[in-house]
Amino acid sequence: MPRDITAYSNPLVKRMRTLRDKRHRKAEGLFLAEGLRILTEAREAGHLPRYCFFAGDSEQHPLVQALIGPVEAGGGEAIRTTPDILSKLSGKDNPGAVVGVYDELPTALDRLDRTTAPLWLVAERLRDPGNLGTILRTADAVGAGGLILIDECVDPFSVEAVRASMGALFTVPLARAAWSDFLPWLRSGPGQLVGLSLDTDSDYRAPDYPPPTFLLTGNEAQGMPDSFAAECDVLVKIPMHGKADSLNAAVATAVMAYTVLDRQAG
Amino acid sequence: MPRDITAYSNPLVKRMRTLRDKRHRKAEGLFLAEGLRILTEAREAGHLPRYCFFAGDSEQHPLVQALIGPVEAGGGEAIRTTPDILSKLSGKDNPGAVVGVYDELPTALDRLDRTTAPLWLVAERLRDPGNLGTILRTADAVGAGGLILIDECVDPFSVEAVRASMGALFTVPLARAAWSDFLPWLRSGPGQLVGLSLDTDSDYRAPDYPPPTFLLTGNEAQGMPDSFAAECDVLVKIPMHGKADSLNAAVATAVMAYTVLDRQAG
Repeated sequence: MPRDITAYSNPLVKRMRTLRDKRHRKAEGLFLAEGLRILTEAREAGHLPRYCFFAGDSEQHPLVQALIGPVEAGGGEAIRTTPDILSKLSGKDNPGAVVGVYDELPTALDRLDRTTAPLWLVAERLRDPGNLGTILRTADAVGAGGLILIDECVDPFSVEAVRASMGALFTVPLARAAWSDFLPWLRSGPGQLVGLSLDTDSDYRAPDYPPPTFLLTGNEAQGMPDSFAAECDVLVKIPMHGKADSLNAAVATAVMAYTVLDRQAG
Repeated sequence: MPRDITAYSNPLVKRMRTLRDKRHRKAEGLFLAEGLRILTEAREAGHLPRYCFFAGDSEQHPLVQALIGPVEAGGGEAIRTTPDILSKLSGKDNPGAVVGVYDELPTALDRLDRTTAPLWLVAERLRDPGNLGTILRTADAVGAGGLILIDECVDPFSVEAVRASMGALFTVPLARAAWSDFLPWLRSGPGQLVGLSLDTDSDYRAPDYPPPTFLLTGNEAQGMPDSFAAECDVLVKIPMHGKADSLNAAVATAVMAYTVLDRQAG
């Protein structure tokens, strides 16, 4: 049976709320996800929260019911609470009906099997959680094998990144690696590294993209370092017809990813 | 000569800070933009701020100098201030060197001349300022004639939208219209309306997109109403290969826009 928590001062609420901070997420090995759509996506992908907070007035919603049962059966805890506390947990003014607290997902590079997909996304030093989440969402949409985060990226387990991923955090394999570890891993098997760059004349529609293709997107403000670009098998550019010199990183990644799919389909 | 303002309690600071709120923007006919890159983009597009706040320690930066002169020559005011006040104005923890206060830009539909570009972006009921700004940035990149916002969209002059546009707010013609006004305007001249939809089997790569093509993107959560879809000349779908059923709205718009460019090029 769900227990009731209605006080801000409840120790579990206070502790879970600290998970909006990266340091606490790391220390606890836990993270927050918010909203029925995302928690349902997670459940369908086999991920149940350790704690599932839900608004009392949505207890009868079939999707809330579909969470409570398995959570409790799996040893987790379902907690009936108030919209205010959900808002406090999620940091959102209009919180969804549920907030889940999940065990951090594994992100070791050697979990990835490059033979399972023709396209892989790679991003280095992403700093915007919205971009990271949106790239995960795109990775799901294009059927990418996974997203590999290089060097110091924003935390993929932040509430903002999880929200922007719309649940793809739970369905797309994720890895984190230093460039110095990624490169030997990449070169230990088949696959070409395609870099998105502003410093090339090669149009993004020109190359073939034989599978597996690893698509590398650089930092939002600076792009990728020259030394990374030098390791790419192919550098390509998306033409810019206006005043600005670059696209949003998540947008550029998506335009490229759909183009690779199109070329691979023949 | 720039004047100095270092007190939070300064009436101009207090008044300008209220521009982070939509109601005050509307009442004053002014909006805020932040960061040297965006203000420079605006200046190059012929837009100077009415007030230009800059951090004292960046006064010698050539791009700050390139703003101060024209602002004062044009009857605006340059104001030397502190990083704390810039942060207070922009709502950003790490503000850029400058914050500008601009007159609201015109958004009447009849300003647009459809013969000037082969591609136009249209979005209805966008609710996320980051998406709106990112779509403006993409509109610039693809050389779109403009962005037309249909019905109740998030305010394009919010700090967040301006920031995500990376300056494209100043370079891409923008219009706002009710659907009931847009449709007669659209049908009063040449052009096809292409809707992005989940409820069609037509692949987005299949159609020709003769100019001018008007590309319609629906609300993030709900897509476009059936009645809007019924008015589209073509409905197309971007294939989804994963678990989720949709892309981020700004991402979907960009994938479509680059595909239209590609098809129009031949």
